[in-house]
Amino acid sequence: MKKQVVAIAGVTGAVGQELLNCLKNRNFPISEIRMLASARSAGKKQEFMGKTYTIEEMTEDSFEGVDIALFSAGGSQTKQFAPAAVKAGAVVVDNSSAYRMDPTCPLVVPEVNAAAALTHNGIIANPNCSTIIMNVPVWPLHQAFGVDRIVVSTYQAASGAGAAAMAELEQQAADWVDKKPLTQDIFGRQYIFNLFSHNSAIDPETLYNEEETKMIKETKKIFDDEDINVTATCVRVPVLRAHCESVNLTFKQPVTPEQVRAVLANAPGVSIIDDAENNQFPEPVLASDKDDVFVGRIRQDPSQKGGVGIEMFIAGDQILKGAALNAVQVAELLLTKE
Amino acid sequence: MKKQVVAIAGVTGAVGQELLNCLKNRNFPISEIRMLASARSAGKKQEFMGKTYTIEEMTEDSFEGVDIALFSAGGSQTKQFAPAAVKAGAVVVDNSSAYRMDPTCPLVVPEVNAAAALTHNGIIANPNCSTIIMNVPVWPLHQAFGVDRIVVSTYQAASGAGAAAMAELEQQAADWVDKKPLTQDIFGRQYIFNLFSHNSAIDPETLYNEEETKMIKETKKIFDDEDINVTATCVRVPVLRAHCESVNLTFKQPVTPEQVRAVLANAPGVSIIDDAENNQFPEPVLASDKDDVFVGRIRQDPSQKGGVGIEMFIAGDQILKGAALNAVQVAELLLTKE
Repeated sequence: MKKQVVAIAGVTGAVGQELLNCLKNRNFPISEIRMLASARSAGKKQEFMGKTYTIEEMTEDSFEGVDIALFSAGGSQTKQFAPAAVKAGAVVVDNSSAYRMDPTCPLVVPEVNAAAALTHNGIIANPNCSTIIMNVPVWPLHQAFGVDRIVVSTYQAASGAGAAAMAELEQQAADWVDKKPLTQDIFGRQYIFNLFSHNSAIDPETLYNEEETKMIKETKKIFDDEDINVTATCVRVPVLRAHCESVNLTFKQPVTPEQVRAVLANAPGVSIIDDAENNQFPEPVLASDKDDVFVGRIRQDPSQKGGVGIEMFIAGDQILKGAALNAVQVAELLLTKE
Repeated sequence: MKKQVVAIAGVTGAVGQELLNCLKNRNFPISEIRMLASARSAGKKQEFMGKTYTIEEMTEDSFEGVDIALFSAGGSQTKQFAPAAVKAGAVVVDNSSAYRMDPTCPLVVPEVNAAAALTHNGIIANPNCSTIIMNVPVWPLHQAFGVDRIVVSTYQAASGAGAAAMAELEQQAADWVDKKPLTQDIFGRQYIFNLFSHNSAIDPETLYNEEETKMIKETKKIFDDEDINVTATCVRVPVLRAHCESVNLTFKQPVTPEQVRAVLANAPGVSIIDDAENNQFPEPVLASDKDDVFVGRIRQDPSQKGGVGIEMFIAGDQILKGAALNAVQVAELLLTKE
């Protein structure tokens, strides 16, 4: 397998750092790696597999000779530099929302629609974290039984808002213990011992926030199924780096919890934690730093007639499967093409 | 109005303490108050409205001359002493789950079924906290439009497990900041920066936990409607004293968010916080120490055909409306009888 020239665009962020871990842990074949970030971070040092690299400011000239550019930058930076990377011959795997709903860009969760990755025109979009974590276990159920409707409520970690948000949550714990005013630079409110509706803009027409709209629209695109009905309520909880989701499913036919368990037991990227006796189910701390999406509380929903309803509760690492790991898995799909 | 002889059974607990606050703040007409608790707390002092009382051990003889006994004790203690209180002539308002599903005991949320309180045979049950908080805003919508189905996911505070659980959550924050092993006496697991499926027993047949089963069964009893379909997922989040709930409703007819807002604006015990522009919606810290249930994120659910679906997010103080306040409101209903 030809070793790749890889660029990390936005290497200093929480996702950028985890991209490096994933590349290393998965033995991604690398001949050369470029550490790119904004001017603010240029000149800083970055370790990777025993070598020290100097972080360079990302410019339109950063991508000469690059095979794969893993982007984890802001939307406007991405819009500026991703086309330059494509022009230089790189394939971009982009973590931002900039290209997700662009019909010319595939939106890929490898466990769901790996083949779509190979139809790219230079840019492949990595889906929203909450969407990925939901799609990994719901897709095999959709394939097996046909999902008519998803009602999801999320319990989202600080990490989705970046490393500074995680630091602020921990700082608020320290402030609370010291009985000091809570540091509120990122979220502008109490986060420790509190929770709040996801801090993305609300569409004035639908009254859904951007995170919820992403879960609805991206799922339809990834599943290539405009008819699947999805509603989402996205909530930020005081947790560091793993998202949980309470998922209520309506199937097109009667489905039992045993059937769901049988499908999920063989589903890629899924682990079942469903120990009723010991009250042990998916939790953020169990999912943190793990690759799989964890599923539990699988049970028949008595509020739906005809046995078509299933409830489940899931947890997945927001920085790994919700972002960096998924992006590196997409990059691996590109290797298989060659 | 005749002043009442009131007994507080379980006065030292989180709910017991809040019962005293509610009686005081609402000027409940009291001629005499008895502070009752287990033998462990007997002899301790309890302040109330400028006087100091000595806590007595609850026995079967504690209720002589008592008009109203507000119980907030364990299930077995309640089963032992509530009948003695009734025998002595008191009316019991009980916070435990001991009598909730007993067909001879009314289960009362005053905003929903106040009249049921007056049909008691000595014991009136106070519903589960999550049930009360959900029922206050859903009932007026059910009356106005007919609710066919409720899908609820909860975000429950430590207070539901008592004062010691709240203290453990705060202790874990201190442990975390000090990089010490986390104190895990109550929940047996990391709670700070984590969340977990509600720590009540799972029914091996339905796979629903007790908290979820309460929300399903109690709602049917309180609404006096066996046909309302309810499913619940109950989750403990690292929050101190207010529960939140993500509530997805299916109505028997098309309903708009404007119609929902109009009904809730006039509903007793409900306050609307639904400020999309400033991203301000119900939060635990906003609901804490408040009487009302707060409702926001009111929007049309696009996953339901025909405009019959509404999403909303609610928050209510678990110790107040979820327990002590509701019990005192029930006691107030008894006064109106005389």
